[in-house]
Amino acid sequence: MNLEEKALSTKQIFQGRLIDLNVETVSLPNEETATREVVHHPNASGVIAVNDEKKMLLVKQWREPIKQVTLEIPAGLIDPTDATPLEAMKRELNEEGGYSAAYWEKVTEFYSSAGFCDEKLYLFYCDTLTKLENKRPLDDDEFLTRAWYSLDELQQLLSQGKIVDAKTILAITMWSNMLLQGKQHE
Amino acid sequence: MNLEEKALSTKQIFQGRLIDLNVETVSLPNEETATREVVHHPNASGVIAVNDEKKMLLVKQWREPIKQVTLEIPAGLIDPTDATPLEAMKRELNEEGGYSAAYWEKVTEFYSSAGFCDEKLYLFYCDTLTKLENKRPLDDDEFLTRAWYSLDELQQLLSQGKIVDAKTILAITMWSNMLLQGKQHE
Repeated sequence: MNLEEKALSTKQIFQGRLIDLNVETVSLPNEETATREVVHHPNASGVIAVNDEKKMLLVKQWREPIKQVTLEIPAGLIDPTDATPLEAMKRELNEEGGYSAAYWEKVTEFYSSAGFCDEKLYLFYCDTLTKLENKRPLDDDEFLTRAWYSLDELQQLLSQGKIVDAKTILAITMWSNMLLQGKQHE
Repeated sequence: MNLEEKALSTKQIFQGRLIDLNVETVSLPNEETATREVVHHPNASGVIAVNDEKKMLLVKQWREPIKQVTLEIPAGLIDPTDATPLEAMKRELNEEGGYSAAYWEKVTEFYSSAGFCDEKLYLFYCDTLTKLENKRPLDDDEFLTRAWYSLDELQQLLSQGKIVDAKTILAITMWSNMLLQGKQHE
């Protein structure tokens, strides 16, 4: 069965600092037409950063769309100046975490919400961390604090509903899986 | 450290069929101001639906924002007429899958991309499925096909980069975890 939709026309609604919004008119597989509201969002990188005590780094920050402070893995937008998603992640781990890491691996990549948005996120794992004497500054409008949690603590926070961010729940579940399968880097 | 931002004003940019877009001016913890682009999106439900052969149901559909056919767990928006996220999921499993299920549990809930959007997704697990003789119709602009995959097949698809949807990767990882920990319903 052919499932493809074909864009017939695109109307630009908004060009913002972070996102752009278009409304597309598409032709459906049955030749009818429909509209699709499409948000364009930069790609991002996030990381499962584990220290020598087997604790994962999370950051607390205010998220205005849901009007609450969240606990999330360090993550950030991939800037045009970042050569690769990994380079972006190393920069963000410096800025948000204040750490560098000697061991890195790519875990997975995915679209956050493909029904309406093209944001892609690259998820990494790193360990063998070194605290930086001179970390890079955060963005001017960015405020956050850091905390470290063991897998047991993370699973307790999850069961209490205190972690609500999709990529962070995926990161914890993947890390748990790596440990259950004995796949973690030593 | 106080991380909270306070909305000073909100400008409505767009009210669509699916999403609304506002630009908020907020005061930051340091008393400076910044703008936040905020997408309002209905909440949704998704399901890990497992049949008696221990295969998970996925649906294939076109996703215009990323211009490709994706493999995703059955999922859908929670309508105003749905009493609960679970009721919405039972309706979607009927519409998209053509099945009902005798056993249900809630797995987790999360915000898809809290940095710019308020979409919340409720993830369920179900099994003990019955194929429906008279399934509900899909929405007029919805076209999809169904397929069943074992965990081994899903992990192969993941490693080949053929599953790119965040909630589906989380669903597979959670199901793998349930099986590794011997927690699956029998």
